[in-house]
Amino acid sequence: MSLKSVLQSFSKPSLNWLLVFIPVALAIRLVPSIHNPTVLFVVAGLAIIPLAGLMGEATDQLAQRTGEGIGGLLNATFGNAAELIIGLIALSKGMTNVVKASITGSIIGNILLVLGMSCLFGGWKFHVQKFNRTAARTSATLLLLAAVALVIPSVFHVEASRIGGWTAAREQQLSLSIAIVLILTYVASLFFSLGTHKKLYQGKSTEKGHEGEDVWSLSKAIWMLVIATALVAIMSEFLVGTIEAVRVSLGLTEVFVGVIIVAIVGNAAEHSTAILMAMRNKMDLTFGIAVGSSLQIALFVAPVLVFASYAFGAPMNFEFSLPEIVAVVFAAGVAGQISGDGQSNWLEGVQLLSVYVVLAILFYFMPAPLAHLP
Amino acid sequence: MSLKSVLQSFSKPSLNWLLVFIPVALAIRLVPSIHNPTVLFVVAGLAIIPLAGLMGEATDQLAQRTGEGIGGLLNATFGNAAELIIGLIALSKGMTNVVKASITGSIIGNILLVLGMSCLFGGWKFHVQKFNRTAARTSATLLLLAAVALVIPSVFHVEASRIGGWTAAREQQLSLSIAIVLILTYVASLFFSLGTHKKLYQGKSTEKGHEGEDVWSLSKAIWMLVIATALVAIMSEFLVGTIEAVRVSLGLTEVFVGVIIVAIVGNAAEHSTAILMAMRNKMDLTFGIAVGSSLQIALFVAPVLVFASYAFGAPMNFEFSLPEIVAVVFAAGVAGQISGDGQSNWLEGVQLLSVYVVLAILFYFMPAPLAHLP
Amino acid sequence: MSLKSVLQSFSKPSLNWLLVFIPVALAIRLVPSIHNPTVLFVVAGLAIIPLAGLMGEATDQLAQRTGEGIGGLLNATFGNAAELIIGLIALSKGMTNVVKASITGSIIGNILLVLGMSCLFGGWKFHVQKFNRTAARTSATLLLLAAVALVIPSVFHVEASRIGGWTAAREQQLSLSIAIVLILTYVASLFFSLGTHKKLYQGKSTEKGHEGEDVWSLSKAIWMLVIATALVAIMSEFLVGTIEAVRVSLGLTEVFVGVIIVAIVGNAAEHSTAILMAMRNKMDLTFGIAVGSSLQIALFVAPVLVFASYAFGAPMNFEFSLPEIVAVVFAAGVAGQISGDGQSNWLEGVQLLSVYVVLAILFYFMPAPLAHLP
Repeated sequence: MSLKSVLQSFSKPSLNWLLVFIPVALAIRLVPSIHNPTVLFVVAGLAIIPLAGLMGEATDQLAQRTGEGIGGLLNATFGNAAELIIGLIALSKGMTNVVKASITGSIIGNILLVLGMSCLFGGWKFHVQKFNRTAARTSATLLLLAAVALVIPSVFHVEASRIGGWTAAREQQLSLSIAIVLILTYVASLFFSLGTHKKLYQGKSTEKGHEGEDVWSLSKAIWMLVIATALVAIMSEFLVGTIEAVRVSLGLTEVFVGVIIVAIVGNAAEHSTAILMAMRNKMDLTFGIAVGSSLQIALFVAPVLVFASYAFGAPMNFEFSLPEIVAVVFAAGVAGQISGDGQSNWLEGVQLLSVYVVLAILFYFMPAPLAHLP
Repeated sequence: MSLKSVLQSFSKPSLNWLLVFIPVALAIRLVPSIHNPTVLFVVAGLAIIPLAGLMGEATDQLAQRTGEGIGGLLNATFGNAAELIIGLIALSKGMTNVVKASITGSIIGNILLVLGMSCLFGGWKFHVQKFNRTAARTSATLLLLAAVALVIPSVFHVEASRIGGWTAAREQQLSLSIAIVLILTYVASLFFSLGTHKKLYQGKSTEKGHEGEDVWSLSKAIWMLVIATALVAIMSEFLVGTIEAVRVSLGLTEVFVGVIIVAIVGNAAEHSTAILMAMRNKMDLTFGIAVGSSLQIALFVAPVLVFASYAFGAPMNFEFSLPEIVAVVFAAGVAGQISGDGQSNWLEGVQLLSVYVVLAILFYFMPAPLAHLP
Repeated sequence: MSLKSVLQSFSKPSLNWLLVFIPVALAIRLVPSIHNPTVLFVVAGLAIIPLAGLMGEATDQLAQRTGEGIGGLLNATFGNAAELIIGLIALSKGMTNVVKASITGSIIGNILLVLGMSCLFGGWKFHVQKFNRTAARTSATLLLLAAVALVIPSVFHVEASRIGGWTAAREQQLSLSIAIVLILTYVASLFFSLGTHKKLYQGKSTEKGHEGEDVWSLSKAIWMLVIATALVAIMSEFLVGTIEAVRVSLGLTEVFVGVIIVAIVGNAAEHSTAILMAMRNKMDLTFGIAVGSSLQIALFVAPVLVFASYAFGAPMNFEFSLPEIVAVVFAAGVAGQISGDGQSNWLEGVQLLSVYVVLAILFYFMPAPLAHLP
């Protein structure tokens, strides 16, 4: 009972008090006398949390007004808009390593951290929690596909270099081709979950919108989406702009900041919702949020960022570092293992969290590259 | 309805018109004025497709006359005779890289391409398709064993080189030992599927032979097998003999030709049957053909080729390139994930095909080795 | 029937005749005229087998007198005491490579060799054997976590060296952090299996103690534990002290001795019990022993050895060689595949054994390092 109330205080509704950090962030940025990159980084990060939540809520509200099909598409497209915006801003500054690190971090953060916390807290309250095995397995298989896609460019680099004949242009073409396959697979999976097999996923969209929340007017929903998106963009600009300074002052590496910190900030709103749903024994919703977010990042946000990188004149490839590859492959493997039997318990939550902590330790101890090679 | 009829036109019976390419291939090869390696490669490849189908049918017919046990053995031994013949001819020319590439290609082609198309087309027609989970899981575990066996020699090479002490002779002994383990495991799995646990696999052999097909006389079956085998050998000779020229003229690499093109040619007959069975909702048969073929290649054809390579005086080891290893390991992983719950749907087909396309992209972009080292 | 009786002759009770090798080992060690390192190695190894069994029995007897909770803890802590003692003695001699190799060997030996033999012999007698899927899956997921933990330090080494900035101290800190995560996860898994979800694992402790065995007095149990532990320590001292000489005289490598021979010696008592339980169709007990031992080694013994290495002034890290990593990752993958559906058959036993044999072949052919770098 008391644990539940503590947890609810971290959940969606009460995150809104964090909105106070928006004016604080603006002040720190604009008033030279109090300008401090590290504080700005923290404050902007905190401000993004409720804004990402508001964007999600506005999208949900819009989705309710537009009917199930288009609503599902809206959710699938804007559900991770905050990560997309952070990614675009980092791309515009040429920080492709941070972009890639935040893609990795969002994937493993959602599967290991969010799902782990959800299984732990939910499983603590309920002895065994059940969920739709088919939907969970389908998602786990898609994750495996995403893992393949992230591994292949590095395999190409290693082998093509060994043979002799590696060129950056060829690697770029390879990455672009894979991005196209991923986004087509994403479209197919939407057609599956919103079209031919929507019954597997039902309960989600319907329950999500009616949990004692107001129904917004259409204009309110659109305005909230526009305003929240604009504010997320500004806060992301602050966040990304201070990464370099924070890195140096805290002695952290670019990869650790991207994989762990930026990923937690970008997904915090979903984190709280997923845990809350687990504590209400709605594990299908939890899986939909946690694994669904991972998939959206891997199959939609990541390819879009690759496409967008051409617009910024600094094409990004899909080549990830060895630790990132290992992290995603193991996360996909563990997700497959956890989801396979359609039930979860608190120890599975601990297992997911342990893998997350081990990976976080790896990224923490990893030294910073001596020189920045793009 | 119309989709079904389109697909049926690609299926076994109607593939026989491709037999017309046998005399065409002979003409191109023997008449100097029209000799063209690229055309010969294509025509010989097309001619192998119905011949491989005829070999399969003759084996089936023989199997029906010899009783279940010996029939199963016949199918298990000659089921992938076309790949075996292509492999032997490539070995006799010292093209071990092509042999290995076609082993890899047959494994991933059957699991990802054939099973993927089957799940897609079958799943499009039937909402959910069920199959025997135990049989499917057993096959998936055997695939994992095959993946281990293919990885180990490369692990040996990397580590033994690092330590200092790698020799080609030692690597050869290692490969030979692994080949023996694989073929013994294959024998055990035959004893399982044809002996102690044949009920798990029943329905396959019985249904397969009586689908409105004629029953051949014993002599017809034997003659067809002998003639088709001889013709496959000749066509394979043409096919393998023109790989080098085609590679250069189309700008493709040896590995791409082996992994993608030769593998599709060698398995085309099975492809059409597996898809047809899926569209009749006989997913157990589909699994038996697709995954069974992969296993036969990995656990029977590959070891036999290693043994045979000694007869040709150019011992082949089991060391595969990094892209090949990654392809087989991921294919085994995805197969385990798909087969685990005993049911399939069209999205699983798309997932399998996506992994195949991503791997095909990798092999397409891979540069050709600058020098040919055996 | 006859197979069973042959097997029973290898099982726990009758292993006690091997105790005769204790005085033999002492004689060989102390009488200079008959001193021979290779014979001493073999004799000490044989003597450890019944002693490890006695330690296990004494722990079981103690566990019965102390009540279920503390009994479970006793079993969980002293269940692999023989391996722990061998490890500590090898550590005290600075043989960290042997320690690591015996950790790897115990993990894969229990999962692949012990479980493989059990599934084979049990499955030969019973057509299909069932076990609790949830308990088995939970263990398989913990194994995957262990595999992650063993991979990460090597990933760190490779990537940190590439970037530039790898230091032994950093690697040591990383290993220590991971060891802490592992042991905390082990505590959580004990709390799960002995506390919140003990019903999943019930039947084990109760049945195990009452299979026609005597109930010992408390003082007998304690004395047996103390004496057996002391004798194991002495025999381990002999065993470890002769590894170097045996290695040279038999032409084996340190890694092969550690991974295959020491691991089999340290786990032989459990091997026979696990197989016996499988032949009585008590697969839950078999899984508990085989997979449970692997987990105990990975999540408890390995971290304790890392901690203990500081006491010996020669800190051990968690960095394993590539073959060891590949072995553990594949073993975890195969275990997940086998355990996923809650039933086993003899072919699954063959599959597990095949993977073990392939890995043993790899370690056999691996050349010895030219120089001993710690």
